[in-house]
Amino acid sequence: MVTLDFSKLGGLVPAVAQDWQTGEVLMVAFMNEEAWRLTLSTGIMHYWSRSRSSLWKKGETSGHVQEVKELRVDCDSDTVVARVRQVGGSACHTGHRSCFYRVVDGDALREDDAAPGASR
Amino acid sequence: MVTLDFSKLGGLVPAVAQDWQTGEVLMVAFMNEEAWRLTLSTGIMHYWSRSRSSLWKKGETSGHVQEVKELRVDCDSDTVVARVRQVGGSACHTGHRSCFYRVVDGDALREDDAAPGASR
Repeated sequence: MVTLDFSKLGGLVPAVAQDWQTGEVLMVAFMNEEAWRLTLSTGIMHYWSRSRSSLWKKGETSGHVQEVKELRVDCDSDTVVARVRQVGGSACHTGHRSCFYRVVDGDALREDDAAPGASR
Repeated sequence: MVTLDFSKLGGLVPAVAQDWQTGEVLMVAFMNEEAWRLTLSTGIMHYWSRSRSSLWKKGETSGHVQEVKELRVDCDSDTVVARVRQVGGSACHTGHRSCFYRVVDGDALREDDAAPGASR
């Protein structure tokens, strides 16, 4: 199993989920070692929920899981980028495709669902 | 100024830097409030270096700074995605364009510089 450095963040690493086709960043969450192991073994994204202090298979109740298409590890082995197929189309609990649907516009945030991918 | 929730990670938020044109994830680092404020006010990416415990204007010595093209904030206001123009072309200290130049391939990591952007 590919090992990561979980020591820098109290047992967690940040995990970025990108749409596998457009490159849009859908969400950023955290994985502990068990979430990483399950992601590798099942091909479905698993995270660690900091708010619930529990393992979190994204989409477990809704069925809107994230299928792993590719996993990348950074130079320090302390961060993961996953290219995923988002079943159901929305990664965000707000219903937006991406959690990053707000753009900084001066001193305010403006809603903008344009995919921050390469297609623009 | 757009405010972020720095409380969940001891004063830090993760910041994802994406190539503004291809959507490739170049690096993931952290910002404290001062780094966020300076990023907003200067249009140049600033981070907090956990290893050096200091403010870090990326590219300060090399000149390979990251110019901000767009800043996005997630639904919880605790993570930032920045679309940047990477001056000099390489975000990673290894010389690779992206820090995420290694792909999980079974139990190993395989080097692959193909941009994880939409152009593939």
